[in-house]
Amino acid sequence: MPVNLSAPDPQSLLPVPGVRIGVAMAGVRKVNRRDLVVFALEEGSVVAGVFTSNRFCAAPVQLCREHLAASPAVRALVVNTGNANAGTGADGLQRARRTCTALAGLMGLQPAQVLPFSTGVIMETLPVERIEAGLPAALAALSASAWGEAAAGIMTTDTLPKAASRQVQVGGRTVTLTGISKGAGMIRPNMATMLGFLAMDAVIDAATLQALARHAADASFNRITIDGDTSTNDSFVLMATQQAGHACITSLDSADGQALAAAVVSLSQELAQAIVRDGEGATKFITVQVQGGRDAAECKLAAYAIAHSPLVKTAFFASDPNLGRILAAVGYAGIGDLDQGLIDLHLDDVHVVTQGGRHPAYREEDGQRVMKQAEITVRVHLHRGPAEATVWTCDLSHDYVSINADYRS
Amino acid sequence: MPVNLSAPDPQSLLPVPGVRIGVAMAGVRKVNRRDLVVFALEEGSVVAGVFTSNRFCAAPVQLCREHLAASPAVRALVVNTGNANAGTGADGLQRARRTCTALAGLMGLQPAQVLPFSTGVIMETLPVERIEAGLPAALAALSASAWGEAAAGIMTTDTLPKAASRQVQVGGRTVTLTGISKGAGMIRPNMATMLGFLAMDAVIDAATLQALARHAADASFNRITIDGDTSTNDSFVLMATQQAGHACITSLDSADGQALAAAVVSLSQELAQAIVRDGEGATKFITVQVQGGRDAAECKLAAYAIAHSPLVKTAFFASDPNLGRILAAVGYAGIGDLDQGLIDLHLDDVHVVTQGGRHPAYREEDGQRVMKQAEITVRVHLHRGPAEATVWTCDLSHDYVSINADYRS
Repeated sequence: MPVNLSAPDPQSLLPVPGVRIGVAMAGVRKVNRRDLVVFALEEGSVVAGVFTSNRFCAAPVQLCREHLAASPAVRALVVNTGNANAGTGADGLQRARRTCTALAGLMGLQPAQVLPFSTGVIMETLPVERIEAGLPAALAALSASAWGEAAAGIMTTDTLPKAASRQVQVGGRTVTLTGISKGAGMIRPNMATMLGFLAMDAVIDAATLQALARHAADASFNRITIDGDTSTNDSFVLMATQQAGHACITSLDSADGQALAAAVVSLSQELAQAIVRDGEGATKFITVQVQGGRDAAECKLAAYAIAHSPLVKTAFFASDPNLGRILAAVGYAGIGDLDQGLIDLHLDDVHVVTQGGRHPAYREEDGQRVMKQAEITVRVHLHRGPAEATVWTCDLSHDYVSINADYRS
Repeated sequence: MPVNLSAPDPQSLLPVPGVRIGVAMAGVRKVNRRDLVVFALEEGSVVAGVFTSNRFCAAPVQLCREHLAASPAVRALVVNTGNANAGTGADGLQRARRTCTALAGLMGLQPAQVLPFSTGVIMETLPVERIEAGLPAALAALSASAWGEAAAGIMTTDTLPKAASRQVQVGGRTVTLTGISKGAGMIRPNMATMLGFLAMDAVIDAATLQALARHAADASFNRITIDGDTSTNDSFVLMATQQAGHACITSLDSADGQALAAAVVSLSQELAQAIVRDGEGATKFITVQVQGGRDAAECKLAAYAIAHSPLVKTAFFASDPNLGRILAAVGYAGIGDLDQGLIDLHLDDVHVVTQGGRHPAYREEDGQRVMKQAEITVRVHLHRGPAEATVWTCDLSHDYVSINADYRS
């Protein structure tokens, strides 16, 4: 059951000038499933991407990097679900290239102007001929208002589509942003990949857009974890169609740059948190804040150690205020000179640990009360510096094991 | 259900000259439970220890480090189960000191000659007065043949006691080694700690013994993982009573040193693997070998990434040859310049992946056959160097979640 998440209201998803979307059934893995999504961007659009750090990255990710490096003018994205085209070696790369060549041919583009994305089964051959056969139908369906269909079309084990919009004033003009995402990490047998696609009509140069994509990903999709498994296909793409009519943004430090960045980060965080809320087997949404670190890096180390600990996650599932596990996770996070005698731990408003030991006023029933909530904030203070970091995660439930232990079918 | 593990035959546990053990009921957490174990070592014994890397280490671990640094002549160890005395701040340290002072007083020793160990509930006050009250009974029970009772006395959530012996010829004399362990990582609510105690009558100097303790721990207890959670209390202690009558070992490179080291490593590995075989909810025993790395460190990175992945572990539980997950884990292990196009993957004798892609001859039924076994070896070859590393782990089952989600009672 998703945690405080519902399907987006189609009326709330705003078309983005310069972006059209077509969804079709290609039968990649299942018949009668809309599993092929094409984004068509008007000429002049600028695209930036952030991709998985997994060295075992999928063929489409390798090709996205190659095309973004080669082409200043990406005009189309093609996404299939049902097959991740990962762990497929040189043959997988060839099949990803065929997908781009086919779409480029139909749209009168160069193959390098197409970015491919695949999600689904790992280590199985991509049925590229089915994708090629499905492309004309996707192009025939191109529409500015198909964001909801796109959000549904890229799902794998997601129980709900994930999409949202924002509008923000930039230089006296209204900029519209709409994005979709699917999750959730490598949460299910063979079902890999976090994908995020965010389009806006903002006017922004390519270098600043790439910086914004990295900044937004680091503040959102790079702050979530379900099971700590980094997918081979994770991708976040930020598209700017340049049609909003404001002065071109060439720096994120400018007032316009900051206004746009705030909107992109806000939308990215909503899309990223939706992935956690829909995490496989999730029953709790957990915010982990680590404060008082020397730098953000060590705060992230501690936050991820807490968020990845199977013991911490099962305790949340059980609503068991078994909070020594959180201290233990901080202890093994890898902060070499950590002084445990300084550490404070709060669970929402409850002060659990002070100076590394149980707070005299802490009562188990107070911890119990918070642990029963569907949304919980864990706050650790290291008292060794000014930095902080926040990550979002979910609990570890029986359903997680059931879903991941199910034989593929 | 433990994987190919049974309770040790009491007849197989050999007394170690110079070591006497007493077990008593102190009622630390449960009544009528033998929860207090004392080791008494004859004068002239030498003791070495390896302790948790967790910065949030428990009070007894802090005291062990202090006493081993201060005293050349440890004569006693005291172990309680039921309470880990971790996350207890300055008060916990005082209570650990009281334990040592009490036992030292009863044995006519200095407190620094006593090493304390605690395992059990985290963040609860150690009932030191109960331990003090139980010490006389433990001392009255001192016996050279109580290894089996000691193995049972230090258990927390272990389903079976873990103990074994070896004999090895060193310099024409027979050296006897007996050890016990308990597990398994931080596997259960509040039940922390891996403990290993290995005693022998070998003649060896303090510095060489410490080097041997580190070497043996790195080859055994530091190569196992259940859930990746490093306990606040993990301790491995190596005791040498110096009574075997052979020439003193002053180097592990000597023939005698190598013979003794081989026996210590062999026994330590049996005790460490027993912890994994009895891992909470374990249904499979998995050996992960990573070969062809530039150095052992990167091989361990990849091996632990595989062994810690909840997706890999649930696939083993399900007997699902869902092997792309293993490639993905290698990919995110942190080997920055890994070339996925070189990687081989074998599951026992089945060649699954070659050059980073599915092996042409691989058939799912072959992977299925191996995945159904109770013991499985995963072998990854990186083809970038001569180094290798092996770790041992178990699968992730429903029972793991059930046990860890049970409310403490």
